[in-house]
Amino acid sequence: MTELAPLKFATEPPLSEADFEAAIRAVGAERYHDKHPFHKLLHGGKLTKGQVQAWALNRYCYQAGVPRKDAALMSRVHDRELRREWIHRIHDHDGLGEEPGGIERWLVLTDGLGLDRDDVTSMARALPATRFAVEAYVRFVVEQPLVVAVASSLTELFAPSIHRERIAGMLENYDFIDDTVLAYFKRRLTQAPRDADFALEFVKKNARTRAEQEACVAAVRFKCNTLWAQLDALHHAYVTPGLVPHGAFVPA
Amino acid sequence: MTELAPLKFATEPPLSEADFEAAIRAVGAERYHDKHPFHKLLHGGKLTKGQVQAWALNRYCYQAGVPRKDAALMSRVHDRELRREWIHRIHDHDGLGEEPGGIERWLVLTDGLGLDRDDVTSMARALPATRFAVEAYVRFVVEQPLVVAVASSLTELFAPSIHRERIAGMLENYDFIDDTVLAYFKRRLTQAPRDADFALEFVKKNARTRAEQEACVAAVRFKCNTLWAQLDALHHAYVTPGLVPHGAFVPA
Repeated sequence: MTELAPLKFATEPPLSEADFEAAIRAVGAERYHDKHPFHKLLHGGKLTKGQVQAWALNRYCYQAGVPRKDAALMSRVHDRELRREWIHRIHDHDGLGEEPGGIERWLVLTDGLGLDRDDVTSMARALPATRFAVEAYVRFVVEQPLVVAVASSLTELFAPSIHRERIAGMLENYDFIDDTVLAYFKRRLTQAPRDADFALEFVKKNARTRAEQEACVAAVRFKCNTLWAQLDALHHAYVTPGLVPHGAFVPA
Repeated sequence: MTELAPLKFATEPPLSEADFEAAIRAVGAERYHDKHPFHKLLHGGKLTKGQVQAWALNRYCYQAGVPRKDAALMSRVHDRELRREWIHRIHDHDGLGEEPGGIERWLVLTDGLGLDRDDVTSMARALPATRFAVEAYVRFVVEQPLVVAVASSLTELFAPSIHRERIAGMLENYDFIDDTVLAYFKRRLTQAPRDADFALEFVKKNARTRAEQEACVAAVRFKCNTLWAQLDALHHAYVTPGLVPHGAFVPA
C-alpha cells in the first residue's frame, strides 16, 4: 500500500470548499517541481545539450506511464460517465486515430535533441529512480480510494505556468531548441486546465469528510514528490555530483 | 492469483499456428455458453418475461464490467500502438462523444423489458455469483501475463453466431421483444469479429512457446467458465430449482 501522511485533523469537521481548494493549491506553492533547482537550470539556459537530453530521455518514462496510470484509474471506475470523461486523458497522451498524441509529441522533442527513438522508448538508459517514481504513481491510483486517486492528478493545476516558463526559457536560451520541438508543452497549455478543472470539481464534490479531504491534499503532496524525486535523480546524476548510475544514459 | 489448468505439454515444441488456432476454437465448440440449457430456453422462447428480465438484469453486470476489464488490461500495456488499438473496445462499450455505446444499448433492452434503470445499474439485485464471475474476469487480465490476458477475450470468436441466434429466436418467440431493444446484439455482429481477429493475430504472434500457447487455450476455457457460471446461477435461481438467493431480483 502506498504511504500517505498521517491524518492529523481527521476527526474535525470538513473544510469549506474554498479552504479545501486553498490547501490543495498551497501544496503546489510549496513543492511543485517548478521550484526544483534542476528546473531553474533547465529554463535558465544553464544546462548543456547533454543534460537537456538526459532530462528529455528520463521524462519520456513519465509521459509513457501516464496513459497506463489513467487506464488503471479507469479500471476502478464503475460510473460510466466518469469513464467517458476520463478516457480523453488517454486520447491526449496516446493519440486517437489521426491525432498522434502527447507521447508522440514528446518523441519529436527527443528527436530534435538528437536522441535515438528506440533508445528513448526502450527506457533502458533511464535512471532507475525515474522509473520507480513513475510506477509509484501508477500503483497509487490502483491502491488509494478513488477520490484520492483522482486528487493525485491535481498537480495539473500548477502545470500551465511551468509550461509557459519552459517554452519561453528554452526557446530563448538554447540554440538546439526551436518552436516545433516544444509542441508538447504548447498543447498541454490547453489540455491541463481542462483536466485540472474537472478533477478539482470532482474532488471537492466527493471528498466529504475532513479525513477524505486531508487524504486528497496528501495525494497532491505525494504526486509532487514523484515529480520532485525525478528531478533529484537527474540533478544527482547529471549536475552535482554528476554520478551517473550503472547503465544509465551518458551524454556524448 | 487466478487459477489456470496445469500445463501438461509445456515442454513440448510449440503448436503450428493452425493447430494453436484449432485448439482455441475447440474450447468454444466444447463449452461456449451457447451450449448452456439456459440459452436454449432463452432463444427458444421457453422463458417467462420475468426470467428474461432476470437474465438481462444480471447480464448488465457483465456488460458494465467489460470496459473496466479493458482499462485494467490497458494499464499493463507498455506498447502505445497496442493501447491505441485496444481503447476502441472501451469506446464500443462506454460510447464516445455522441455515440452512446453498448452499455447504453443494453439499458435500452432492460428498459424495453420494463426494468427500472436505477435498479439495473445499481446491480444490487443481481446474483452474487454473476458479480463474482465478472470480477474474476477483471482480475484475470490484471494477474495473468499479457498475452494470456488478451487470449481471454477470444470468446468473441464464438459470439456472432450466438448473437444471430439470439436476435432471431427472441424476436420470433417473445411478444415483449422487438427489433429496437436488440440493438446491442446487432452492433456486436460487426464489433466482435474485428476485435476477435485482432486478438487472435496478437495471441498467435506473441505466444511463442508451447507453455504460452497452452496458457492461452486455458484462458479461453477460463473465460468460457465465467460466462457459463453466470448462466448456471441464473438457471439455479430462476429455472430449476428456482431458489432465488437473499436480496436478488424476484420477478413480479
